[in-house]
Amino acid sequence: MKTRLFTPGPTPVPEETLLELAKPVGYHRSAEAKAILAELTEDLKYVFQTTNTVVTITSSGTGGMDAAVSSSLAAGEKVILLTAGRWGERWRGILKAYGTNIVTVEVPYGKAVTPEMLESALKANPDAKAVFATLSETSTGVGHDLEAFGKLTSKTDALLIVDAISGLGAMECHTDKWNLDIVVTGSQKALMLPPGLAFVSVNDKAWKKIEANPVRNFYLDLRRYKKSIAESDTPFTPANTLIKAQRASLKRIRAEGIENLWARHAKMGNAARAAVKAMGLELFAERPNNGLTVITVPNGVDGSATLKAMEKKYGFKLADGQDNMKGKIWRLSHMGYTDAFEVLGAIAALELVLIEGGHKIEPGVGVAAFQKAFAAK
Amino acid sequence: MKTRLFTPGPTPVPEETLLELAKPVGYHRSAEAKAILAELTEDLKYVFQTTNTVVTITSSGTGGMDAAVSSSLAAGEKVILLTAGRWGERWRGILKAYGTNIVTVEVPYGKAVTPEMLESALKANPDAKAVFATLSETSTGVGHDLEAFGKLTSKTDALLIVDAISGLGAMECHTDKWNLDIVVTGSQKALMLPPGLAFVSVNDKAWKKIEANPVRNFYLDLRRYKKSIAESDTPFTPANTLIKAQRASLKRIRAEGIENLWARHAKMGNAARAAVKAMGLELFAERPNNGLTVITVPNGVDGSATLKAMEKKYGFKLADGQDNMKGKIWRLSHMGYTDAFEVLGAIAALELVLIEGGHKIEPGVGVAAFQKAFAAK
Repeated sequence: MKTRLFTPGPTPVPEETLLELAKPVGYHRSAEAKAILAELTEDLKYVFQTTNTVVTITSSGTGGMDAAVSSSLAAGEKVILLTAGRWGERWRGILKAYGTNIVTVEVPYGKAVTPEMLESALKANPDAKAVFATLSETSTGVGHDLEAFGKLTSKTDALLIVDAISGLGAMECHTDKWNLDIVVTGSQKALMLPPGLAFVSVNDKAWKKIEANPVRNFYLDLRRYKKSIAESDTPFTPANTLIKAQRASLKRIRAEGIENLWARHAKMGNAARAAVKAMGLELFAERPNNGLTVITVPNGVDGSATLKAMEKKYGFKLADGQDNMKGKIWRLSHMGYTDAFEVLGAIAALELVLIEGGHKIEPGVGVAAFQKAFAAK
Repeated sequence: MKTRLFTPGPTPVPEETLLELAKPVGYHRSAEAKAILAELTEDLKYVFQTTNTVVTITSSGTGGMDAAVSSSLAAGEKVILLTAGRWGERWRGILKAYGTNIVTVEVPYGKAVTPEMLESALKANPDAKAVFATLSETSTGVGHDLEAFGKLTSKTDALLIVDAISGLGAMECHTDKWNLDIVVTGSQKALMLPPGLAFVSVNDKAWKKIEANPVRNFYLDLRRYKKSIAESDTPFTPANTLIKAQRASLKRIRAEGIENLWARHAKMGNAARAAVKAMGLELFAERPNNGLTVITVPNGVDGSATLKAMEKKYGFKLADGQDNMKGKIWRLSHMGYTDAFEVLGAIAALELVLIEGGHKIEPGVGVAAFQKAFAAK
């Protein structure tokens, strides 16, 4: 049986990138290694849509988030946290660890934080040093209106610090045009690499705050990465084979073009949502993003068992809900090296297991709706 | 031309491990992923020679060192730093970043810190909470007597915290028998993997201190890793393809046997040192370790130009000295997936470039001495 990965990270990796990982390892302080990192950094700037400094950290995406917090904030400083799910809570965990004074703007799972909520919070907290937001809340499928958030924070002294780990590349994101001061992403989502690298874009407004911040970390202190990247280098031995392979995956994005990449994800997301509705199922996210489609498990259906059956019988690996969402939602990723025909297959497999489980669905309604939406202009 | 890597990290990676890295990526929260991490952890314990908890962090080796410091020490606490080179200075940088009160025991580059020095320092500083040491000081080729250090610290409340990044696997190291409380290593040295993973062994004495320590970090807080590894899991999305590949390289160590691995490195190191002396060159380290051989550049020879010529003409990539040691020493690694016949080749290449540069060496004295030492019982 063929197996197919539809989890919202890790995602499938292109064959030429995987083969890059099988090549002999080189020295990370050579001229060749610096040229590779320089090229990677340029391509990352393209993906981030920025002229900012972009640094590469050997860590999980959370390492990049920690770097953003610990490098830019002193203990006791006030921040506004916008949270709509588990990844907003990840920000909260990091902010708590570093002793910041957190003002929380929280919405239930499945909902999105609105620009109006941020506007009120900024008004009530003019002394906030930063706002923490999530581009794609992967735990619920919600996408946030970062453009509107940036319009609000850019009028204040507060930094807008964004977790774009699962969103960047899969949905429109303009770091510079939208005034996103710090943007964090990871290698294992739409950037089509295995996990292991975090990338962080930092603009001048943020560097100013960071340069004045007390030292709170060593390995994740962004100042060290800034100093090194100015010479196309890293402060610590990096995962250099992942860096070389990331370059290969970014070449694929360059070749496709970022606007085309966004449009392709939008088209896949739109078709997936149409299929879900045609199958009589409900979308969990009120403001869905194009990187993944999150489906509410219908009453009377065992959500976790359904996913296990899909994997065992048809080889499609979707993601369950996390923590207290387990069994309540299905998360179908369509970001990165995944095309519409594969998503169509996942819809077909979901139809099949639901029908086999006794759920009333007319075979073909989902795939037909997917095809219809996909074919539309 | 064939190219060969003799830098003390990264080191060559076995072919079956590289091919593992080229396989499709899996989901990191699956039962299969947990089984892989559990197996890896067992094999790591074997390499560490410990029954302690061993955690896997997605980071450079320095990330593991940072985790050891930030997880176990509060600001202002007194520590004894034993430093004999650049990697002792890396400990210092981290200790400074976290505001510890550092008592430094320092010897010049090329020398080793002695157990007597540590004994005096412990006597003079009974309130020291930890001692920081380096197994293999890769910047100079020195190896430290960790067994003797452990005998001293085990009689005190101070933790012995060891950077074994380039030493573990290449030289004898008994975490439990020697009373090493925290031991940090990295994937890219004798463990035969590309860079990207750090492994940290923590014993009960250290956990006791860590559990009582204030929270100072998020991503690198060892408590999070302890909690996860109890369920064969990681707190954050790990570099799961590196983990799977590390398992393959550790299988090789298991098959060889740790004592045989140490003996093989000892034999290679011994032969390399014999070759160096036979060529009329000097060893830089007064207490050389078996992971690498560090050679003093003779008067009148351009050290950096010689290495460049070796690489360009013969494809052998050795490492230069770092920072202010640049041009003054040559560092020839023989750890991990490197055998005696390859080191013999490196000795031959060094002989050739030196002769071509006008240095007086009888062709063959180095390789003959290597062979003679290697053949001896």
